Amino acid sequence: MRTLNSDRLLQWIEELGAIGATPEGGVRRIAGTQADKSGRDKVVEWMRAIGLDVSIDRIGNIFGTLQGETDAAPIMIGSHIDTVGNGGKLDGPYGVLAGLEIAASFRDAGLTPVRPITVAVFTNEEGVRFQPDMMGSLVAAGGLDLVEALASRDRDGVTVAQALEEIGYAGDAPCGAITPAVFLELHIEQGPLLEAEETIIGAVDGVQGIFWTAFTIKGQANHAGTTPMHLRKDAGYAAARIAVEARRIANEIDGQVATAGQIDLKPNLVNVVAGEAYITIDLRNADRERLFQAQEQLNKAVASIARDEGVDIQSKELVRFDPVRFDPSLVETIEGVAKASGYSIKRMTSGAGHDAQMISRICPTAMIFTPSIGGVSHNPKEATDPAHLRAGLEILSATVDRLLEARR
Amino acid sequence: MRTLNSDRLLQWIEELGAIGATPEGGVRRIAGTQADKSGRDKVVEWMRAIGLDVSIDRIGNIFGTLQGETDAAPIMIGSHIDTVGNGGKLDGPYGVLAGLEIAASFRDAGLTPVRPITVAVFTNEEGVRFQPDMMGSLVAAGGLDLVEALASRDRDGVTVAQALEEIGYAGDAPCGAITPAVFLELHIEQGPLLEAEETIIGAVDGVQGIFWTAFTIKGQANHAGTTPMHLRKDAGYAAARIAVEARRIANEIDGQVATAGQIDLKPNLVNVVAGEAYITIDLRNADRERLFQAQEQLNKAVASIARDEGVDIQSKELVRFDPVRFDPSLVETIEGVAKASGYSIKRMTSGAGHDAQMISRICPTAMIFTPSIGGVSHNPKEATDPAHLRAGLEILSATVDRLLEARR
Repeated sequence: MRTLNSDRLLQWIEELGAIGATPEGGVRRIAGTQADKSGRDKVVEWMRAIGLDVSIDRIGNIFGTLQGETDAAPIMIGSHIDTVGNGGKLDGPYGVLAGLEIAASFRDAGLTPVRPITVAVFTNEEGVRFQPDMMGSLVAAGGLDLVEALASRDRDGVTVAQALEEIGYAGDAPCGAITPAVFLELHIEQGPLLEAEETIIGAVDGVQGIFWTAFTIKGQANHAGTTPMHLRKDAGYAAARIAVEARRIANEIDGQVATAGQIDLKPNLVNVVAGEAYITIDLRNADRERLFQAQEQLNKAVASIARDEGVDIQSKELVRFDPVRFDPSLVETIEGVAKASGYSIKRMTSGAGHDAQMISRICPTAMIFTPSIGGVSHNPKEATDPAHLRAGLEILSATVDRLLEARR
Repeated sequence: MRTLNSDRLLQWIEELGAIGATPEGGVRRIAGTQADKSGRDKVVEWMRAIGLDVSIDRIGNIFGTLQGETDAAPIMIGSHIDTVGNGGKLDGPYGVLAGLEIAASFRDAGLTPVRPITVAVFTNEEGVRFQPDMMGSLVAAGGLDLVEALASRDRDGVTVAQALEEIGYAGDAPCGAITPAVFLELHIEQGPLLEAEETIIGAVDGVQGIFWTAFTIKGQANHAGTTPMHLRKDAGYAAARIAVEARRIANEIDGQVATAGQIDLKPNLVNVVAGEAYITIDLRNADRERLFQAQEQLNKAVASIARDEGVDIQSKELVRFDPVRFDPSLVETIEGVAKASGYSIKRMTSGAGHDAQMISRICPTAMIFTPSIGGVSHNPKEATDPAHLRAGLEILSATVDRLLEARR
């Protein structure tokens, strides 16, 4: 009989969270830095202590495998341990260390799973220093060429290849060498929905599509006092109109969110009509058709604003990720397990990107969410009730058991 | 018979414009700097060469007086010679040097006016380094205490008193010692109206009132993907709504202009709902009642936006200048002179602030505008057709003659 030691998981989360700790109580462990190396070293040390076979692939992904009775394709559990500039202890590490705890519980009980269980740590999920984000999982899934990924440079011109070499994680295993039977990622929600609905487990059926567009507006800088309204080409007003239209579109289309997160005016002075403006619109929807519809409506509104105000508006597609659907039967399995365990459960779509959305290209994949207090993440205040962290581990572990039974 | 030498005026404008010249073809001669000193020295040199009696008051205003047949109150003609960070050659100097040319033309003809003519150069009209702007004329008109003005500090903690001492223009004449019989200021329009209407002379009947308000919005920073629209408190969206409402108000109220010139979001990232925003609204109207009405409508709209979005909005009054009405009979005199000279003329209200609006507190005052090419000013590209500069000088000079006749 296998027993989970959820105290050990919470302990590991604290220990890993101390590596790169910031004065505000957060964590700064950006991919490819010395803090990332120290975090990786710690996780590899724990993997080896449990008796996992550790391999590092050429993009720096770490795989710790608990061998099974057969050498069938493994059940893979994973996430990332890199953070944003000043993030929390849970985003990423929770999923990795829960996998580690499940492997450890097999060892503790002297049990061997029928097929291998692999704990994965993917390189550079956050994309802070090197773009694109979700880099390690994307390369592992064949969605990005290894050579291209290794050549990505930070602001100082350092490449991913150089950074991995520097921290000792330029591995020699071929990328994509391990094709999992299934992939599971346990993660904090990073949003307010589970908390708002007093639900403990989210069975995640997919990831919203993400379209980012930047609009650069050229009008005419003018004196705020001497220029009559009808003679203005106000780039700032055009940007404000775009932000208001984005909200209208989000309100009209089902499941749509829209955010004008960045607005920059030039010269940005109280008494000068802005001659230039830059605004970004982040559109997300779990439904591909609706997402395209939202983008089309936005583009039409922008064209109409440009005409009305007599400004020139250039648009640039910054990001275009189609929505991802996870494996329906795997999502149902998670739901079934949670119901059997007596936890409240909600089927939901992730609003944020995750390694799971990349790995879903190569095998049946799903995610499990636990609540984020106040919906906060990417912030030192990121937190989840420890009872909810334990519940997430329990559901992940029970799902693994169900899969091992089904795939005997 | 007195003859104007408009070539000399254009020559002076070029010579003064060379002091503090910038690589882009503009002028940087900020009040209280060494460039300001050099510009002042040059103007004082010209004043003395013409035979004007020069006095400097305690706020650094320069007065060059051509004595008259009587020592009645003088006709004062003036403006400023300080510039914005990268301005043009005309904004300010045109009005000062046109006054100088008129005085010079009396000297050249060996004529003495019936009453004195004083050419005034007011300190720190632009308010770039020291606030408030229009400082010298405001102190001269008794609207600002001398001690308070001298104590105003720049970003490095240097006071106006220290800066004036440094450049040798901390004079000893009491402020307000000269009360003019009338004050005239010739200036470029700094707006597009005269050019758009193909009119050469503006008879300026007043200055718009100016209300500047800053709004600081506190919402909640959130993940752009995981936060449903109905749970957002988006400070950036609230700022955009304010900008759009300001435009609506300007369109609905007669003679009203409104500008949202500055918008700053925090954290200003594509995928984060802005937690904070700062936006300024510049409202102007020549009619005091309508200006108050616009501000009231804006405040109501802001309160309603705060309620709708669930954000906190604090407002701060940055500037509150009531509209200024110039002397109606003086404006009529200018119109009459321009019509008699055959120039197209438009009665108009200044959208920008000028020294004349301060001096109008102590004597009958009016302004004459000439067209700005493209409406551009406060910019190296600031320009006016030389023929229009000559026309402005001619109308100013003929107005002075008319006043001298009337006030014999």
